[in-house]
Amino acid sequence: MFRNFKLVPRVIFGRGCFAQLDEILSHQRSEKDDWAVFVTDDVFTGTPLAARIPLHDNDMLLYVNVDDEPKTGYVDQLTRQVKDARPTLPCAVVGIGGGSTMDLAKAVSLMLTNPGSSTQYQGWDLIKHRAVYHAAVPTLSGTGAEVSRTTVLTGPEKKLGLNSDHTVFDQVVLDPELTAGVPKDQHFYTGMDCYIHCIESLAGTYLNEFSKAYGEKSLDLCRQVFLEDHPDSADKLMMASFFGGMSIAYSQVGACHALSYGLSYLLGIHHGVGCCIAFDALEEYYPEGVTEFRHMMDKTGVNIPRQVVKGLDDTQMDTMINVALGLAPLWENCLGKDWQALMTRDKIRSLFLKM
Amino acid sequence: MFRNFKLVPRVIFGRGCFAQLDEILSHQRSEKDDWAVFVTDDVFTGTPLAARIPLHDNDMLLYVNVDDEPKTGYVDQLTRQVKDARPTLPCAVVGIGGGSTMDLAKAVSLMLTNPGSSTQYQGWDLIKHRAVYHAAVPTLSGTGAEVSRTTVLTGPEKKLGLNSDHTVFDQVVLDPELTAGVPKDQHFYTGMDCYIHCIESLAGTYLNEFSKAYGEKSLDLCRQVFLEDHPDSADKLMMASFFGGMSIAYSQVGACHALSYGLSYLLGIHHGVGCCIAFDALEEYYPEGVTEFRHMMDKTGVNIPRQVVKGLDDTQMDTMINVALGLAPLWENCLGKDWQALMTRDKIRSLFLKM
Repeated sequence: MFRNFKLVPRVIFGRGCFAQLDEILSHQRSEKDDWAVFVTDDVFTGTPLAARIPLHDNDMLLYVNVDDEPKTGYVDQLTRQVKDARPTLPCAVVGIGGGSTMDLAKAVSLMLTNPGSSTQYQGWDLIKHRAVYHAAVPTLSGTGAEVSRTTVLTGPEKKLGLNSDHTVFDQVVLDPELTAGVPKDQHFYTGMDCYIHCIESLAGTYLNEFSKAYGEKSLDLCRQVFLEDHPDSADKLMMASFFGGMSIAYSQVGACHALSYGLSYLLGIHHGVGCCIAFDALEEYYPEGVTEFRHMMDKTGVNIPRQVVKGLDDTQMDTMINVALGLAPLWENCLGKDWQALMTRDKIRSLFLKM
Repeated sequence: MFRNFKLVPRVIFGRGCFAQLDEILSHQRSEKDDWAVFVTDDVFTGTPLAARIPLHDNDMLLYVNVDDEPKTGYVDQLTRQVKDARPTLPCAVVGIGGGSTMDLAKAVSLMLTNPGSSTQYQGWDLIKHRAVYHAAVPTLSGTGAEVSRTTVLTGPEKKLGLNSDHTVFDQVVLDPELTAGVPKDQHFYTGMDCYIHCIESLAGTYLNEFSKAYGEKSLDLCRQVFLEDHPDSADKLMMASFFGGMSIAYSQVGACHALSYGLSYLLGIHHGVGCCIAFDALEEYYPEGVTEFRHMMDKTGVNIPRQVVKGLDDTQMDTMINVALGLAPLWENCLGKDWQALMTRDKIRSLFLKM
């Protein structure tokens, strides 16, 4: 059985295309009372970008804080806020920001039409009702959240996404101009999220030609961005992110993402940073990729956090190991069907101790 | 203004995935009387593939002949046949075949819901009503018809597609096993349709990074298929075709396609063959591409038709020149805004005389 992959059905790409957002949303505004919610990263408060959001009278500009990675409790609170604001559901939810903001927009659009708490839907295909129309405007490139069928949430019990076809955005607005001004470190960490996930999927056992074609081109674009100098590197990284996300159709990430989930869950380390910390310890599994990653790190001049597990007690270490080991498909993709014989608790502990 | 590109919303890729077609269509069969039409290339009559088409009692297996390229009159006739067969419209139209068959399936699905003759809709965005759900099962790789927003038809007055967002398929089933057994010449001509259109779009003035990323990877895959030897070259060419079609989002074909339309219109030469004949005469415009194309031709051992314009009278030559010159966007993409000063009637004539 092959997955019948749900693609984002509408994509607009181009420098300045954010100016077309109002026209794009106009097709959703059929009734006089129709209103839209703009789920926007609060770093944009008071910026020129915020002033360009095409707000109509009845619309809601909902600033969100993503200093921490998205949590189910936060999603439930935002959903309540949107539901309480007007007597009708919004006709559109638009996420403007990086991966966390886009994930919050996806999650809110789903929870507006699916009853209960978002914790009930952490898993695969548990969402039963179509979401409110939702669109993404990435302001950071690399996460692939703009094309993925998940929204990664940390709940009281687990870090696990709402994975479903309904999660996929209805529209993506790819305007490379919006990624100008991203701090150097964040640019690197988010770009490496894309680079690492391509290395993992291309080295994996799940791959087919669909995912390979997308993954290889994404990697090629990452190399152009992080090892060469191009005036249009923002355009290239935006496409690398899009292709990286598409490559996931028939592939899977691997050891690095599994370990990084442990770091994020216990230490609250942001996804891109956690991926870099974990990847740097995985030379044994991805020798060429790790060497190239270190070249990119040198060229960019970013210093990743070191000794992050120092001082953790046994219980904390066990928690991280449990989270990492729980991600069976990632390990199977990396090591094959017999991964459990190869990736023991002791082996995982020794990898964490290198970070 | 950038185009808000409509993508095929569902894609399944994998060797053997044709076996999932029945399950995929089951989501369209909500009422007891719902029925599907399988628009199938008549070369498959009596073949094992025909026996595998998941026909339900009420369904219609509609064999089509594509010895000639699709004509508006043929589309109108097929549409009438489908309308007359049952009191309700079908719930799905599935095209099984190469570019011409897929184009016929698209055109029929559109004409079932849009009144009048298909000649009325030759052009851009003239289609007003949503088509019947339509899916593609390509059995030939290279045309890009599986992802394009057009269906190319020859009418009494012109060769011009029904270009619209409604034209785009709702589902594509990419099973590389289905392309086994394609005759060597046809494999080459259809593959070159993809190769040439990537060369034209990458050399064009319309390009942006979205189309460039898709076009470059498509070209890379074409090279692997036609210059190297890979056991999975059918998979690669299927992805090259898909990527080539996607690259058209923000690009355009060029001189070769314009000239080939003249050959097809007057001489009835099939699209892929016409592209090869025209491209071989375009060293002046695409020097590296034409050199590489000739290597591919040598390696494959295909001999393209020569001296095809020999014996044409002035009226016939004028008709071909008119058809080619009518495709303004293709010339503008190739030569820039001032293309009319560069591409005179005499120049076009001299190019045709080389074919």
